[in-house]
Amino acid sequence: MSTFVLVHGSWHDGSAWQAVVDHLEAKGHLAFAPTIAGHGKSVDKNVNHAQCTQSIVDYIVGKDLTDIVLLGHSFAGTIVAKVTEAVSDRIRRLIFLDAFVLNDGESLRDSLPPHYQALFDSLARESDDYTMMLPFELWREVLLNDADLELARSSYAQLSPQPYQPWIDKLDLKQFYSLPIPKSYLYCTEDNVLPQGEQWGWHPRMSNRLGLFRLVQMPGSHEVMFSDPIGLAEKIIVAGRD
Amino acid sequence: MSTFVLVHGSWHDGSAWQAVVDHLEAKGHLAFAPTIAGHGKSVDKNVNHAQCTQSIVDYIVGKDLTDIVLLGHSFAGTIVAKVTEAVSDRIRRLIFLDAFVLNDGESLRDSLPPHYQALFDSLARESDDYTMMLPFELWREVLLNDADLELARSSYAQLSPQPYQPWIDKLDLKQFYSLPIPKSYLYCTEDNVLPQGEQWGWHPRMSNRLGLFRLVQMPGSHEVMFSDPIGLAEKIIVAGRD
Amino acid sequence: MSTFVLVHGSWHDGSAWQAVVDHLEAKGHLAFAPTIAGHGKSVDKNVNHAQCTQSIVDYIVGKDLTDIVLLGHSFAGTIVAKVTEAVSDRIRRLIFLDAFVLNDGESLRDSLPPHYQALFDSLARESDDYTMMLPFELWREVLLNDADLELARSSYAQLSPQPYQPWIDKLDLKQFYSLPIPKSYLYCTEDNVLPQGEQWGWHPRMSNRLGLFRLVQMPGSHEVMFSDPIGLAEKIIVAGRD
Repeated sequence: MSTFVLVHGSWHDGSAWQAVVDHLEAKGHLAFAPTIAGHGKSVDKNVNHAQCTQSIVDYIVGKDLTDIVLLGHSFAGTIVAKVTEAVSDRIRRLIFLDAFVLNDGESLRDSLPPHYQALFDSLARESDDYTMMLPFELWREVLLNDADLELARSSYAQLSPQPYQPWIDKLDLKQFYSLPIPKSYLYCTEDNVLPQGEQWGWHPRMSNRLGLFRLVQMPGSHEVMFSDPIGLAEKIIVAGRD
Repeated sequence: MSTFVLVHGSWHDGSAWQAVVDHLEAKGHLAFAPTIAGHGKSVDKNVNHAQCTQSIVDYIVGKDLTDIVLLGHSFAGTIVAKVTEAVSDRIRRLIFLDAFVLNDGESLRDSLPPHYQALFDSLARESDDYTMMLPFELWREVLLNDADLELARSSYAQLSPQPYQPWIDKLDLKQFYSLPIPKSYLYCTEDNVLPQGEQWGWHPRMSNRLGLFRLVQMPGSHEVMFSDPIGLAEKIIVAGRD
Repeated sequence: MSTFVLVHGSWHDGSAWQAVVDHLEAKGHLAFAPTIAGHGKSVDKNVNHAQCTQSIVDYIVGKDLTDIVLLGHSFAGTIVAKVTEAVSDRIRRLIFLDAFVLNDGESLRDSLPPHYQALFDSLARESDDYTMMLPFELWREVLLNDADLELARSSYAQLSPQPYQPWIDKLDLKQFYSLPIPKSYLYCTEDNVLPQGEQWGWHPRMSNRLGLFRLVQMPGSHEVMFSDPIGLAEKIIVAGRD
């Protein structure tokens, strides 16, 4: 039996994992899905990356969770890296699910293709609270390319604007890269959010930065927690076992 | 219910889609599989790219098809791009099935690896009508790598020599690239006709030229209409839905 | 009915194929799994690449095997290339299973990433017989990433130290590259032993060196003979058929 802590990506909150959590628990595991500070509906969006990280550290320490398999999805790859620095003694293994693995000193924005940088810069600038909402067309065609339109719409309704500052903050990751914690990279083979290929893709560009890691793959999009939550839960178990 | 128009690749004619059409229709869709001018058995092979395109435009207009999901396989990626320029108001979505997406001003031949250019140049030069027939060994090992020998032989018997001029003609695609029609790229993961990898492969080299597109993948070779027509039909539905 | 000769990789011996051989034979084929000289437990490890090759040639000639589908896994890609030069008239087709395809004049070590060169150089130097044993952590996380810990342990117990000289010997492969024998490359899509990607990966880096070849893929790790022997046997049949 493992203790999973699942950390959501941009525009999401912890409720995105509900079906995955249910399946992990049905299989006898413990699973937690906190919401990052500044994320979710009806909350203050004025947060930076350090505050996001601290909110997950507080959650783990507050519940006194230990021997954790800590998973970060997408943006949360940057969160779990910094959380690991803070509470490394509580973490048994890290799982990066189509997640950003930043080089030391980079921001998430630094690792995006220029057309995405321009799009999200513009959306944040036009907002009144330095957030940006994902256009539905991108959600449907690129993030959730493996779902039908009905699921694309119902899941889009669960999203909320993403604070932009955590994408801009440059992260000191020297300690993260020195920690010997086992790592897995779980890659969904139809994920085209970062354009597939050597220059921009999730895998192997992001994954190879981890050094020694366990590669696990599954069919599916960037948003398999919606399009295939049971398949995802099964692969999380495979990625997270010793 | 969708209206699919499936456009075949080189050496093929519309009959290559029969099993796919049957399955799409069994699922309640309309499906049409015209033969491109100069293609198929016992026809005049003296055609250029514009005549190939016009024959599909004529087919669509002649049947007054509207709200079409228009699919091009392989060579026909170049056809559907030009057809779209002519009848964009009739097209709901484009699907590129392991298909050429040419840069503006290129010919199909321009995007082939040098060893293929040399082979097909030579075959066309040696013919008496500027066509080239695909060697069986290539068909069996590279195009239909996922079939048994019996299917490789029976399907090869359906092929006919390919007019070379449509591979040589350089295409003005400026209008195509300006059209906001939704696009999907359906990639078969064992397709090795264009050598897999960044330099020559179908995906992501060809697919990324589309800009915003929906990626759909399935196992199989370049010729899944023969080796897995039902699986292909199911993925065409996924690639073609809104 | 085919006659398969399966040649194991580094650290292994012929017993690694037992479950695969059983399944091939249950399907009506003949299957042989010789042990390369200097490999296996309790044997003299003082061998070079030529002696490794000769031991497989002797096995094939000794049993008078003809019309062989000859498969090499990993390191044994280098063995079957040289065996083919010696007994090309006995070989119907070659299968490279996540196997090294060296350029003429290269050693296996030449085609490894620098961090692996440093690791294995160091392990061999520290041994008293110029062999190196694979660290368990690499076996579990990278070679057998698709198995549970119990299988990782039981299969690791079957391994033995690998003679380093056959990895160092530079191979003349001019004759191999001149032979018109049909070739297949069978790639397991979760194999991360050579880091995936253009620069170091098995496919398409190694596979494309074969020129015309049949690509076959299956899910799984570098060690599918342990994690999925029946699935592997089925794909060997597909890769090996005419």
